[in-house]
Amino acid sequence: MKLLTPEHLTAEAFAPYGEVIETDPATAVEINSGFTTRYHALAQAEVGEGTAILSLFHGRPRPLEIDMLERHPLGSQAFIPLESRPWLSVVADRAEPEAVHVFACTGQQGVQYATGTWHFPLLVGNHPQTFLVVDRSGEGNNLEEVYLDETILISV
Amino acid sequence: MKLLTPEHLTAEAFAPYGEVIETDPATAVEINSGFTTRYHALAQAEVGEGTAILSLFHGRPRPLEIDMLERHPLGSQAFIPLESRPWLSVVADRAEPEAVHVFACTGQQGVQYATGTWHFPLLVGNHPQTFLVVDRSGEGNNLEEVYLDETILISV
Repeated sequence: MKLLTPEHLTAEAFAPYGEVIETDPATAVEINSGFTTRYHALAQAEVGEGTAILSLFHGRPRPLEIDMLERHPLGSQAFIPLESRPWLSVVADRAEPEAVHVFACTGQQGVQYATGTWHFPLLVGNHPQTFLVVDRSGEGNNLEEVYLDETILISV
Repeated sequence: MKLLTPEHLTAEAFAPYGEVIETDPATAVEINSGFTTRYHALAQAEVGEGTAILSLFHGRPRPLEIDMLERHPLGSQAFIPLESRPWLSVVADRAEPEAVHVFACTGQQGVQYATGTWHFPLLVGNHPQTFLVVDRSGEGNNLEEVYLDETILISV
């Protein structure tokens, strides 16, 4: 059993795995006669020959034990929390325990996993939370799963 | 000045304008070893030759006066509230005051405007709210605006 502590989520730290979806002033544009600020194109859905679809994921608390990783080789996948609660994003640049990183996301931060990025399924904290998910629909097998040699326990 | 009262938002009532993004049990699939319920493909982003992008819109209160409508002829546009607050969706099947409908969206309801659907810009209630927006990026003019002959006042 390997113990991991969540890291602070920033665009820079998360860059190898995808994008952080948050209100970064660098992306702000005033629209709608000044009544709306648009934080423009924080992520671009990668869907290849497929289609970008919008779904809702209702995640329930589960043990903070990482024994597997999955990835979507044909498209990106974005998660945006809808109830302003903190959650965890678990990613890796290869499917090995040593490569796993855990990020502590605030309730105002979503992420998009780049195409083919290893990650653990949706991990909420102590409360259920619903997320908006943008991912790919289309032909082909868009899911790979691997079990790890060693289980990782997240220490929060 | 024409007075309009918001209607209750349901998938059926909104069907001429696009999709409602909410946790409809009819679309539920259990995934992630039973820890997540996926409400699958509630909307499909329509982007033609373009790309689906994810942005955040921070909307501020404005007068509930509808004096114009806009539409995006090249792609769909989805709005999902991130702070669980009610908001208003204003749509029309043609750019005329008689055709305007106002829907009262709960804080758990997002909508996607179908390609070319006339709508008013983001309309929050008494408090600011941030929304996740999925729309189109790409070549071509994707915005048309028209001013109405008569201003519509929303009575809430």
